[in-house]
Amino acid sequence: MEHQSNNLTFRKLGIHSQQEHFVYMREDCHVCISEGFEALTRIRIHFGLRSVVASLNIVRTDILKVGEISLSESAVELLGIKEGESISVSHVHPIESLSFVRSKIYGNDFSSTELGHIINDIVEGNYSNIHLSAFITACAGNRLNTKEIISLTNAMINTGQRISWNNDMVVDKHCIGGLPGNRTTPIVVSILTSLGLTMPKTSSRAITSPAGTADTMEVMTRVTLSMNEIKKVVEKEGGCVVWGGTAHLSPADDILIRVEKALDLDSEGQLIASVLSKKVAAGSNHLIIDMPVGETAKLRSIEAAQELKSEMEKVALAVGLKMKVLITDGTQPVGRGIGPALEARDILSVLRNDPSAPIDLKDRSLTLAAELLELSGKAEGVSGMQQVQKTLETGKAYEKFIAICEAQGTFKEPTLSTHKRTIRAERSGKVIKIDNRKLAKIAKLAGAPTNKTSGVDFFSPIGSELVKGQALYEIHAESIGSLEYAMEYYRSQNNIITIQ
Amino acid sequence: MEHQSNNLTFRKLGIHSQQEHFVYMREDCHVCISEGFEALTRIRIHFGLRSVVASLNIVRTDILKVGEISLSESAVELLGIKEGESISVSHVHPIESLSFVRSKIYGNDFSSTELGHIINDIVEGNYSNIHLSAFITACAGNRLNTKEIISLTNAMINTGQRISWNNDMVVDKHCIGGLPGNRTTPIVVSILTSLGLTMPKTSSRAITSPAGTADTMEVMTRVTLSMNEIKKVVEKEGGCVVWGGTAHLSPADDILIRVEKALDLDSEGQLIASVLSKKVAAGSNHLIIDMPVGETAKLRSIEAAQELKSEMEKVALAVGLKMKVLITDGTQPVGRGIGPALEARDILSVLRNDPSAPIDLKDRSLTLAAELLELSGKAEGVSGMQQVQKTLETGKAYEKFIAICEAQGTFKEPTLSTHKRTIRAERSGKVIKIDNRKLAKIAKLAGAPTNKTSGVDFFSPIGSELVKGQALYEIHAESIGSLEYAMEYYRSQNNIITIQ
Repeated sequence: MEHQSNNLTFRKLGIHSQQEHFVYMREDCHVCISEGFEALTRIRIHFGLRSVVASLNIVRTDILKVGEISLSESAVELLGIKEGESISVSHVHPIESLSFVRSKIYGNDFSSTELGHIINDIVEGNYSNIHLSAFITACAGNRLNTKEIISLTNAMINTGQRISWNNDMVVDKHCIGGLPGNRTTPIVVSILTSLGLTMPKTSSRAITSPAGTADTMEVMTRVTLSMNEIKKVVEKEGGCVVWGGTAHLSPADDILIRVEKALDLDSEGQLIASVLSKKVAAGSNHLIIDMPVGETAKLRSIEAAQELKSEMEKVALAVGLKMKVLITDGTQPVGRGIGPALEARDILSVLRNDPSAPIDLKDRSLTLAAELLELSGKAEGVSGMQQVQKTLETGKAYEKFIAICEAQGTFKEPTLSTHKRTIRAERSGKVIKIDNRKLAKIAKLAGAPTNKTSGVDFFSPIGSELVKGQALYEIHAESIGSLEYAMEYYRSQNNIITIQ
Repeated sequence: MEHQSNNLTFRKLGIHSQQEHFVYMREDCHVCISEGFEALTRIRIHFGLRSVVASLNIVRTDILKVGEISLSESAVELLGIKEGESISVSHVHPIESLSFVRSKIYGNDFSSTELGHIINDIVEGNYSNIHLSAFITACAGNRLNTKEIISLTNAMINTGQRISWNNDMVVDKHCIGGLPGNRTTPIVVSILTSLGLTMPKTSSRAITSPAGTADTMEVMTRVTLSMNEIKKVVEKEGGCVVWGGTAHLSPADDILIRVEKALDLDSEGQLIASVLSKKVAAGSNHLIIDMPVGETAKLRSIEAAQELKSEMEKVALAVGLKMKVLITDGTQPVGRGIGPALEARDILSVLRNDPSAPIDLKDRSLTLAAELLELSGKAEGVSGMQQVQKTLETGKAYEKFIAICEAQGTFKEPTLSTHKRTIRAERSGKVIKIDNRKLAKIAKLAGAPTNKTSGVDFFSPIGSELVKGQALYEIHAESIGSLEYAMEYYRSQNNIITIQ
């Protein structure tokens, strides 16, 4: 009886809430009344064999008729439901794993089993944004010990898809964020796959930065490929640079990252688990980590970097990854562009051996490629650096890059924005300090990464001798509104670039 | 130009989201495109001189026409907007106070100014649920020191309305939650106002419990009164028992409490700030605190209670409150009813000197009233206990209670539910332990406090000698669905009541 009365007809309202699943029900709906639901309630929606948990929003107009129910589009997609089909709803059982989160907030450690339950509940959509935020906050500020990070990493690996490759040796690289424009990945992949290594690179979109590698690659090619498509690209070219989201390598991480973004917060433990779980799930076994250090980078001191490095090494060992961490310069942006299209332009200029190519981006890419080549044991007599340099400078890496893009679906030349504003030096002197975070914020306020051509084009690295009025950087945006928004922030700040 | 293009027509969709303000806009809306908004974005909505911040949901059906915009009902109410009126939208400036929350997560203390900014942003609606949850989690687990709690209390006082009374001496009481059925407030108010004290009691609704005093009082009278109405009741009767929400005494607290409820989490610092800020804002200066201690009460040990007591005393002193804390027995429910209507029945039986009235509820009420009378210095020769006992037992307190209810608008006799299920002893023996939390959870799953007559009627206090099959308690619900839900939980648990 109870179950039959639960049949409601799905009507599409087409509301995209993204963050969280919502269910829309009429106040006078018999299910609302008989089950005692009210606003704030979390309920389970059943369609065939599938179900999702959603937060109830009550509708008091006739956008829903008696007997109708609607869902936000994320839930519609997950259930695969169409207008007119029938849905039933039920209470959500108390989420027991939330008591583990509360226990952590009160200073107790997570057990491996507890983290397993939490990550499982997150992947199943049982946590609302409020719950996710509490979990993230409870883990942030160095509140996860090594054992907990290993457990979290394993829990994330176990809840996602795992890829295996025909090749025993699969190499990968990762940069511990925070440095604008540091877009070495496409160059490293092109060099190493030219040299015969397997490097199936799945990259993320921006979390709190103006661009992730996937955002930048998307300017030049398709990055949203199915697992089958990715396999074909890698079979053909030895590597790829695609967005990792479709691979469902660590679905918990994808959910957590959206909330971390809203909080502008990265937790060290989450960071390690996020990076290493995706590498293991992607089938990689040799990994190079670029870890930039600078006052305004994610890692602000050598000590902090050493600590993170040591923690990562312990976790990598525990999950079976051969890994090397390079602590690098993070005092200023790498290359000139900050934002997807501007960064894509820089990548191409390095690959094309354009004389005006940013030398720092080139050097950094070569260093990472050389180290990874040596870590893989494939350096073959000559030094890794000599081999990778030759590959880049003969144009082989560029050819490979184009081949990879085409295997992924297309190669497009990046175009740049027409809405620009130049920021000039207010005095003559030498650039002695750059605030990466403020520069990144300007790029974000200008619209990056959502607006691909938005960002900052940066001309004044540390040590530049400038005269008053000389261009420091240029803000690019896709609308006057966004340009103004970035300019407003620029005007409110001091010391974005310090000239002495 | 930018501002004119922002004019959108408000259309009422009637969606109640409660938790958080939402704005609904079409994907192809010119404002969306020109301003570069997308899902997850927080935007500011302007209507006349008012504005609110809301999370953007994008609509991809024609429930909104070109040029139309909609808002969730909480935002509609705040703005006071009607269908067809014109709205403009703008970007939300980065919320600077979130960096203070991040700093706290990383282990730094809040300054008084920082907490002022945070609480101000919260009251202005600038924090989404994700932000609120991070703030609450960062403060929980004893992470606020005394100075921070004092600052938080003052910040909460400063952002709300403050009431002043004609009388110099204004008394108040508060119970540090966690004990089902402990509904002494209406009795204490009735006794002390009979004795001529001023006791304008504003109470809360349930946070994580099956009933708050306001929920229980609502069964018998109106509790949602305007400030003017409250003043009139107190002028006439010397006291009241109303819901504190309309008084806007600590609007930040009202917002935080909803999120704490979703997390089922109480932070000690938030707790002290919440309680004391409301007392100061309500104009009280003499305060008695009931602090029940028991394994399954909010405070689980005498040590924890002593610590909280000492912390509260420091904060009370700093904000100018004369306060006494009574550490009391919290090992089992007080009275018989758990849930609004069942508790209302118990209160009336004590006030009416009904021979079957729960003696524990009566004794506790008398103790609190006597202590508060003595704290106020109005005990006049005889002991406080003798005075309050006489007031209750002569029926003067009952008369006063009815007079207060009538001054608040009405007096209604509580009715009870017809959907009931009796839980019986599975063995003979003596009751040695009661799990308050599980008992409260059963009452909540049965529908309390939303469904007024739902809850638990409890017959088996510690020390009861029972025979197998004897009734331990009765579950009351307003629908078969809720009753079944509570029963399902009951069946899944052991040791709700331990018999030896």
